[in-house]
Amino acid sequence: MGAGHDTISFLSDYGTDDEFVGVVHSVIRAIAPHAAVLDITHGIPPHDIRSGSLTLARSVQYLNPGVVLAVVDPGVGTDRRGVAVEVGGGQSILVGPDNGLLASAVSLCEGATRVVELTNDDYRLPAPGATFDGRDVFAPAAAHLCNGVDPGELGPAVDPMSLLPGLLPVTRSEDGTVIAEVLWVDRFGNVQLNVDPDEVESLGPTLRIRAGDGVRTARLADAYARIGVGEVGLVVDSYGLLSIAVDSMSAAELLGLAAGDIVKLDGTPETSSVDGAGPTPIRLRTNET
Amino acid sequence: MGAGHDTISFLSDYGTDDEFVGVVHSVIRAIAPHAAVLDITHGIPPHDIRSGSLTLARSVQYLNPGVVLAVVDPGVGTDRRGVAVEVGGGQSILVGPDNGLLASAVSLCEGATRVVELTNDDYRLPAPGATFDGRDVFAPAAAHLCNGVDPGELGPAVDPMSLLPGLLPVTRSEDGTVIAEVLWVDRFGNVQLNVDPDEVESLGPTLRIRAGDGVRTARLADAYARIGVGEVGLVVDSYGLLSIAVDSMSAAELLGLAAGDIVKLDGTPETSSVDGAGPTPIRLRTNET
Amino acid sequence: MGAGHDTISFLSDYGTDDEFVGVVHSVIRAIAPHAAVLDITHGIPPHDIRSGSLTLARSVQYLNPGVVLAVVDPGVGTDRRGVAVEVGGGQSILVGPDNGLLASAVSLCEGATRVVELTNDDYRLPAPGATFDGRDVFAPAAAHLCNGVDPGELGPAVDPMSLLPGLLPVTRSEDGTVIAEVLWVDRFGNVQLNVDPDEVESLGPTLRIRAGDGVRTARLADAYARIGVGEVGLVVDSYGLLSIAVDSMSAAELLGLAAGDIVKLDGTPETSSVDGAGPTPIRLRTNET
Repeated sequence: MGAGHDTISFLSDYGTDDEFVGVVHSVIRAIAPHAAVLDITHGIPPHDIRSGSLTLARSVQYLNPGVVLAVVDPGVGTDRRGVAVEVGGGQSILVGPDNGLLASAVSLCEGATRVVELTNDDYRLPAPGATFDGRDVFAPAAAHLCNGVDPGELGPAVDPMSLLPGLLPVTRSEDGTVIAEVLWVDRFGNVQLNVDPDEVESLGPTLRIRAGDGVRTARLADAYARIGVGEVGLVVDSYGLLSIAVDSMSAAELLGLAAGDIVKLDGTPETSSVDGAGPTPIRLRTNET
Repeated sequence: MGAGHDTISFLSDYGTDDEFVGVVHSVIRAIAPHAAVLDITHGIPPHDIRSGSLTLARSVQYLNPGVVLAVVDPGVGTDRRGVAVEVGGGQSILVGPDNGLLASAVSLCEGATRVVELTNDDYRLPAPGATFDGRDVFAPAAAHLCNGVDPGELGPAVDPMSLLPGLLPVTRSEDGTVIAEVLWVDRFGNVQLNVDPDEVESLGPTLRIRAGDGVRTARLADAYARIGVGEVGLVVDSYGLLSIAVDSMSAAELLGLAAGDIVKLDGTPETSSVDGAGPTPIRLRTNET
Repeated sequence: MGAGHDTISFLSDYGTDDEFVGVVHSVIRAIAPHAAVLDITHGIPPHDIRSGSLTLARSVQYLNPGVVLAVVDPGVGTDRRGVAVEVGGGQSILVGPDNGLLASAVSLCEGATRVVELTNDDYRLPAPGATFDGRDVFAPAAAHLCNGVDPGELGPAVDPMSLLPGLLPVTRSEDGTVIAEVLWVDRFGNVQLNVDPDEVESLGPTLRIRAGDGVRTARLADAYARIGVGEVGLVVDSYGLLSIAVDSMSAAELLGLAAGDIVKLDGTPETSSVDGAGPTPIRLRTNET
């Protein structure tokens, strides 16, 4: 038995209207009552591995050492593997399906130092029908790891190189245009792009944003609240990525953007009205409309 | 004083947009700071005793011994009783309104070994107006029970036979057709029926499903992921009941089903196209449409 | 170092679909693992200071002594101050933005005994871009206060009189009519007014309610469940304020009311049909329609 862990950080697409999250908490408490379970979020859209993976990647640097339990699992019941992925030489261990969900977080933790497949029935709950893997496989594994059970007890070792990689979209550059992708629209309608601020540094303080059929001019701002009324801003967000924001409004709603959409960024001539995309007047709308 | 309890499992229809759930947690912590409060769910539709009762019944086998606090209470302020129902000779105790909400869970725990009515003002909070029973009656009772207060202190004994029974729908059989009811549509759109797999065993591996005006053919599958693309499947779900599912889609949306709806199941002739209900082509829709 | 605290009560407009709440919990646990974090609610509408302030005011009398962490912050990134407001001579301390959010709660705790501005970088997390104040400023401050760090360590003292006041709407009286405002519509559709029951005592047991173009007659009832079918009732709610309610329906939906709306209350003549507003027949609708 190892030293164990005392924190489980838990992310899923279970929502909180059904009892799934509560039952997972209950299963963990029955096995490892000393472990604190911190809910990262359960609001990942159903089966959306990409969103779950990005949310986990944004969170991981703030999580406490210990176990990370992550379940977004359209392949439940197929032969996709359930795994425990040790990082930092045992400082933390991620438990979940091997479907790409964990990949970005593992990379940010400098890669897996050990991986096992969760096959040992001694560390599973019996299910009366189809297995509910969160409840019957992943939660018990997470709890037993907190109790100091060695990962090797949970199942056979797996080559870390065989884990399904994540698909983090990268930007492309075409004739001075940065072709980016929307990673995330948050509750406040801010639109996070997969763009490092360095990538647009050469384009100047005012950029042209093209998305769908629309064209907008946006100014780089150093805080959301420094974006003027009626102005579209580009802010380096609290994760260090470029984000489209509008003062006191949802930028996503205004620009009609959602996760996965393509956004093209390029510089604007000094006279910003040349392309008809100069300071764009916007009608104020509330979130309700 | 008894030995007390250290876990409260909490279910309600309070939602989490108002402060109701947080205030109940606060009241419990003020009285019994050692008790861990595990939220099963607070997403039961407002006043929906049936849904709350079924959710509690699905969860109860996974809950930790201790106190179960359950509040879905359209009759707050009437003379419906508030009760504490001991099960397993004191292993656990369910606290909530006597309106049928607790009944199925109590049955699954092999019945009440003792019931009291929560009338003792010494174990209530004073309310500035109408009583908020979750905050003022049920939460204090749950917390005091955790502190080892004997149930008999909370109020007079009640005959367990006088508790309002739950109304668990049972299937009927008519000319070889099983007439079932939708118990639950989960976040993923799976449709749980009140049907034990034994009840349809004689009908063969392919069943005809009639619901509303629609007719579909569905195949028994042993896992959600083994349902083919464009196919309606019947899976024994993780609670051991028959569930209608569709690969990577919401079966409830596809079939237009909601909790409480009637579904008729019967066998199909060998040639499954005889009744025009052979493998049903389905249009793919997203959850958003 | 002071004695510290062991409870943080946490309210925000973060929602629970993003990872904001989970990350704040994680940051607190890393600094003050002994502190219990109780979520009051995170469902405050985005940037709605008024709603957050009222929710906090309703909750505060039920919260445990310790730290209250409240973040609804449209001015993040501007020069609005972040503050810690001690009440009760150190019994509790409220942490959040100085934008009026905390004001009503502070008043209910009989005012600030000490205020500091949160400027000391030693008690902040570094941010890779724009500061996420909940994560980088407020959560660390709350956690360090739990560890017994003196508020004076977090930044310079601020004159309590300089805090932005809250804007609690008060009723007006015009020719015997009480002009009230909707403070809150809860999950069940009950409509809380800013009216103390004393204010309408002289108007008799049956009141006329005018809101928008509609006129209704409502009877004072002593519990929600004592409101007759098809009747609009006025109940002293569980916070001691007058609330419009309808039996088993959403009063807000029936009367078309939302937070902030104006409602006029006056007495009715003995013959309640004089103004055509006698017992109002209502069509039953479900919450779904």
